[in-house]
Amino acid sequence: MEKSLLACLLFGCTLAASFIDGSATGKVRNYRFEVGYIYWSPDCAEKMVIGINGRFPGPTIRAKAGDTLVVEVKNSLPTEGVVIHWHGIRQFGTPWADGTASISQCAINPDQTFVYRFQLDKAGTYFYHGHYGMQRAAGLYGSLIVDKADGEEEPFHYDGEHNLLLSDWWHESVYAQMLGLSSIPFRWVGEPQTILINGRGKYKCSLAAHLLGDSFSCRIRNSQCSPVVLRVLPNKTYRLRIASTTSLSSLNLAIGNHSMTVVEADGNYVEPVTVSDIDIYSGESYSVLITTDKNSSSNYWISIGVRGRVPKTQTALAILNYHPNSPSKLPSQMLPITPKWDDYSYSKSFTYKILAMHGTPRPPTKSDRQIALLNTQTKIDGYIKWSINNISLVLPSTPHLGSMRYGSKIGFDSEKPLDKFPDDYDVMQPPVNPNSRKGSNIYKLEFNSTVDIILQNANTLSGNVSEIHPWHLHGHDFWVIGYGDGKFKATQVTKFNLRNPPLRNTVVIFPYGWAAIRFIANNPGVWAFHCHIEPHLHLGMGTILSEGVDLIRKIPNEAMACGSTAQMLMNNKPH
Amino acid sequence: MEKSLLACLLFGCTLAASFIDGSATGKVRNYRFEVGYIYWSPDCAEKMVIGINGRFPGPTIRAKAGDTLVVEVKNSLPTEGVVIHWHGIRQFGTPWADGTASISQCAINPDQTFVYRFQLDKAGTYFYHGHYGMQRAAGLYGSLIVDKADGEEEPFHYDGEHNLLLSDWWHESVYAQMLGLSSIPFRWVGEPQTILINGRGKYKCSLAAHLLGDSFSCRIRNSQCSPVVLRVLPNKTYRLRIASTTSLSSLNLAIGNHSMTVVEADGNYVEPVTVSDIDIYSGESYSVLITTDKNSSSNYWISIGVRGRVPKTQTALAILNYHPNSPSKLPSQMLPITPKWDDYSYSKSFTYKILAMHGTPRPPTKSDRQIALLNTQTKIDGYIKWSINNISLVLPSTPHLGSMRYGSKIGFDSEKPLDKFPDDYDVMQPPVNPNSRKGSNIYKLEFNSTVDIILQNANTLSGNVSEIHPWHLHGHDFWVIGYGDGKFKATQVTKFNLRNPPLRNTVVIFPYGWAAIRFIANNPGVWAFHCHIEPHLHLGMGTILSEGVDLIRKIPNEAMACGSTAQMLMNNKPH
Repeated sequence: MEKSLLACLLFGCTLAASFIDGSATGKVRNYRFEVGYIYWSPDCAEKMVIGINGRFPGPTIRAKAGDTLVVEVKNSLPTEGVVIHWHGIRQFGTPWADGTASISQCAINPDQTFVYRFQLDKAGTYFYHGHYGMQRAAGLYGSLIVDKADGEEEPFHYDGEHNLLLSDWWHESVYAQMLGLSSIPFRWVGEPQTILINGRGKYKCSLAAHLLGDSFSCRIRNSQCSPVVLRVLPNKTYRLRIASTTSLSSLNLAIGNHSMTVVEADGNYVEPVTVSDIDIYSGESYSVLITTDKNSSSNYWISIGVRGRVPKTQTALAILNYHPNSPSKLPSQMLPITPKWDDYSYSKSFTYKILAMHGTPRPPTKSDRQIALLNTQTKIDGYIKWSINNISLVLPSTPHLGSMRYGSKIGFDSEKPLDKFPDDYDVMQPPVNPNSRKGSNIYKLEFNSTVDIILQNANTLSGNVSEIHPWHLHGHDFWVIGYGDGKFKATQVTKFNLRNPPLRNTVVIFPYGWAAIRFIANNPGVWAFHCHIEPHLHLGMGTILSEGVDLIRKIPNEAMACGSTAQMLMNNKPH
Repeated sequence: MEKSLLACLLFGCTLAASFIDGSATGKVRNYRFEVGYIYWSPDCAEKMVIGINGRFPGPTIRAKAGDTLVVEVKNSLPTEGVVIHWHGIRQFGTPWADGTASISQCAINPDQTFVYRFQLDKAGTYFYHGHYGMQRAAGLYGSLIVDKADGEEEPFHYDGEHNLLLSDWWHESVYAQMLGLSSIPFRWVGEPQTILINGRGKYKCSLAAHLLGDSFSCRIRNSQCSPVVLRVLPNKTYRLRIASTTSLSSLNLAIGNHSMTVVEADGNYVEPVTVSDIDIYSGESYSVLITTDKNSSSNYWISIGVRGRVPKTQTALAILNYHPNSPSKLPSQMLPITPKWDDYSYSKSFTYKILAMHGTPRPPTKSDRQIALLNTQTKIDGYIKWSINNISLVLPSTPHLGSMRYGSKIGFDSEKPLDKFPDDYDVMQPPVNPNSRKGSNIYKLEFNSTVDIILQNANTLSGNVSEIHPWHLHGHDFWVIGYGDGKFKATQVTKFNLRNPPLRNTVVIFPYGWAAIRFIANNPGVWAFHCHIEPHLHLGMGTILSEGVDLIRKIPNEAMACGSTAQMLMNNKPH
């Protein structure tokens, strides 16, 4: 059953449709989210934050595989639209519930409610977040934890669990951040003020000071920024669910004296691997198991530092609190030290170790189409942008799902983007003559075909810089079948790992390197595939994939009540 | 002709309709506005501002009476809707072009364009501004000057003219301002940092320092905040057009050594009256004539100070620059002194002097309906609000114009608000038991009926405070037929000025006082009537007036593509 269900979910099948029609045994779980601005002090400094139901971060949703989640999202922002994306949930049969503005739906207008209704297709560690403008960076996110269906068991044992949702936080508003990105000269907000754990951190104020009530160095004793404490009993095994919804930062997490065994990545089981620390990129999630078999008279640091960029942000700290120690008892050990920010060999070593659990479905042995996507920085009309095969993604005012389903030609650019970039492109050099344009960047995939995408990293405009880009695919998991340094060569296809490639929804490309993914285009819909770094996406670093558009069932009108789909629907011309 | 045209425009007639159908002789004037965030330094401190076409304030529109204005407004804000209201233009036959979100149209979505097309019904000094959230306070405004039609003449002579659009400016974003207003405890942004003249002012930096290039006290020599200089020739007569789009501030303007003769108020001619200074409230406009017959070897200060609130904002200054003096030559006289902020007798004395020019149509001698509106501060669920006859205005996600025209019952509260407030209400005391509720506050007026509205001011929650409220009516001019102190009494109807009451679109109520207006409900549409102070409107200080809704022609679908009107139109049930 486990295996056939997995296979079904991976490959798409009639079972998926029956889930949606409510014949599944799962429960319907109802939530009401009211999205609005709140005053909040994530790092003890009070700012305006986009909260849900008056709190930050949003409520943790907990459900079981097969359940139907119904979330009524009311937009109480005064003048802004909003959407919520359910990161990692594949939305079989409900592509309009993917929560991507301009792609799967119209933004929800102020004072309006939109009901997201969809099946939770498999157990795993997920999260949800805003997917409009840079609202994620403004605080619009929360955890979504899906347990195994009743009667099913996890393939590993644990006695308890804790959840850590990681993010980064700026004191500059996202409006100013977006304006800076769209300005000449380009204005960059800089590194985050604070790394947050479950929405809590410390800015210019130490956790120790907070714990000890030192009112001088940490003036605000504010429960909104109180330290995160994971209470554990000695000699037990705990599952830590760790997800990153950072806007920018690549992170490394370590626990003093405790090793971790990675067992899950992006909602898929992986072959257990024991490490001293983990790297986690925006859009990724992991579950790790830890055993609380260390000296139980001590507490232990959980430390989270920045990787891949010169760190200018204080290491974030939480406390692993062994019972019955006081949570305020400061750990006696030294802080775990985050690996050097640019030690990419270390990063690759970790990432390459993540492999599918034995028994995970293997990818088809061949692909029907290979798309190679070159990631370059460019300038268009003097504005710095990211482009993919020389097209910088722009999002239309009419959602692509509606435009494509209804056959509208309005509102997007139907020029086909290329499946290749020039053979002679030197990824080690800054782009010579970028010649980029803005575009809709829609790749139409044949339904049920097997697609390989090679993501190719390169040098940036400033030269001698190549950044980390975690790419996230909506509507699918994919197998990560290869990684490499430098420029991808056609011959490397023969070296793809088709034996135990991990299934994930986010894959990182390292500086000057490449990554190859394979997936089956089996989910009728229109799906974003993009760098999960919020300002990178805002600057055009993404593509749109469509598949089986004619198989999409009737889209609820309220998802399409904007732009040219609204005009079509009002003029009675759709379908 | 002049008289019959005026009468027609006042009373509504077939001529208005023929204007709209393009049979009028006026030109079509096309503008393109792209609304977006820009970095700008209105008071030399750089902030994010809502600009038009990359500049702040928006372009000055100049046209002639009878012209058709066509403004394509493209929303380039990343996540916010936008609308633009054409303040003082009555929109005969085009109520959907009034530019009030939730009332006359759906907000324009990001990356969408809406075309405002309407007739400029008469000459005058107008302006335009955002009418969604507090976008006006964020900088979304500009001047709209309508000259007499070809062949028509102003009823006074002048040799040249200058335009002064006044506003106030905060360094706190409007998002934070709105959040503060909607918080418990209430957080008030405080007085503006700067008063702006044509979008320019000085914060912690003197105009003299700027003019003289004193880089110490005024570090940024930035043309965006360079002093406003009105260049004049000696011994001429100039028309100064002065309009106020402040968010909060009541202002007083004086010119050193020069008296002013008021000739126009809110786009209507007034009996010329000569004064040493003028008070101007948000939403008002005046034209004054000045004669440049003073010592021509000197320049003169134009100074603008705050009235009605304890002033904490530096007096704004401009230079009246007599040719051929250098504009940098500082005036030798003392600064004109703004009258004491709470000298309301002085304010009333000025306001009461504004009377209709001889020959202006007189109001009907009787009204068909009298509506008395009590303005009180209140608390609803712990939130401080303003309420009108105990209802605090809330705006729906579906525009009232569409809901009412299509007969939808959804999206607004159809409970009739009252035409009176309790006889025993003591306006001199703080509200005792406010018992307010939120509501749509729609007054349905009989088409072509004559309506009197008595606006009654009162004490606020804090006690011993009664503020100034300039009320602005959309879609109409009205005659101001009475003013008084304390509570309005029914017997005062006999003392109404029906001989030469000024025609205006904005009327001020003074602390603890009342004002009476009369107008003819002759403009099919749904119209806002509200306090023009931005935070007061945001807190509910307004009502909606509807009239002749069944006479409204087909509303363009694109004005109604949101909320329940979009649903109705998409489900084919409208009309």
